Amino acid sequence: MAKKEAKTLDELFHDTLKDIYFAEKKILATLPKMEKAAQAEELKRAFSKHKTETEGQVIRLEKVFAAIDKKPQGKTCDAIVGITDEGAEVMKEYKGSPALDAALLAAAQAVEHYEISRYGTLKAWANELGLSDAARLLEQTLAEEKKTDEALTKIAESAVNLAAEAA
Amino acid sequence: MAKKEAKTLDELFHDTLKDIYFAEKKILATLPKMEKAAQAEELKRAFSKHKTETEGQVIRLEKVFAAIDKKPQGKTCDAIVGITDEGAEVMKEYKGSPALDAALLAAAQAVEHYEISRYGTLKAWANELGLSDAARLLEQTLAEEKKTDEALTKIAESAVNLAAEAA
Repeated sequence: MAKKEAKTLDELFHDTLKDIYFAEKKILATLPKMEKAAQAEELKRAFSKHKTETEGQVIRLEKVFAAIDKKPQGKTCDAIVGITDEGAEVMKEYKGSPALDAALLAAAQAVEHYEISRYGTLKAWANELGLSDAARLLEQTLAEEKKTDEALTKIAESAVNLAAEAA
Repeated sequence: MAKKEAKTLDELFHDTLKDIYFAEKKILATLPKMEKAAQAEELKRAFSKHKTETEGQVIRLEKVFAAIDKKPQGKTCDAIVGITDEGAEVMKEYKGSPALDAALLAAAQAVEHYEISRYGTLKAWANELGLSDAARLLEQTLAEEKKTDEALTKIAESAVNLAAEAA
């Protein structure tokens, strides 16, 4: 492995780490608003639980920065800004509507899928770069995000959407 | 099912359909740039194949609009704008770098995951609204997007990233 090129993938890894670190902090700031807006108790609880989980994920990211001898640092992530802007817009448009929870769920799942793609990518790169501690940390968060997405799907398929129809 | 509230979920379904219709068109415009930028032949082929697939997905969306008696119409989707802006930025930053293909793959997978979340949501809503034709069409595209994401993961785990290290 030539040093220069290894460093290039290193840089991409570091850049993408800054991107998801920014994204997690943005999500941390957004979740309380979603919890407050949610109508169904089950959904409020899901957002509250995910906030606690996200706090742990931020700490885990800080350990990944440490594993590559870098200071934790965010870099504006246009993707998460766009995804959360869209969520905020829909929250406003459907305020007071029985379909609000369905809209919140859709926004939350868009966020989860963005994270799943980023952590999947970062984990693969960590493995290629021989960063086994980082890969393990990223895998833990990836598994959590997938589980959260599945939990949201279950809520979406049951109570919340039905409430939107029946209310 | 009360008429007013059923209409509310209808509206959310229609709004989200416009969102993904805009997104697919944006992706159609972006894929040729990604194909041109890609270094590995395997990745170029994957982007080219996905472009053809996306054309079919746009037509399928037009059938979903028809199923709810609406004209196909897009609505700016901040999320896909953010995701593709981020992809464009990374393409510029890593131009000429052996890690460019890895960066392109990461951008493409972020796009796929956005689509997977949107089609999953739309399919669930179509089912709740009793729109079985629409649900079937959306399921077809959802399955394609998941397959594309898996194909990209395979490429990411094999040739392309290794090329970035070994070049």
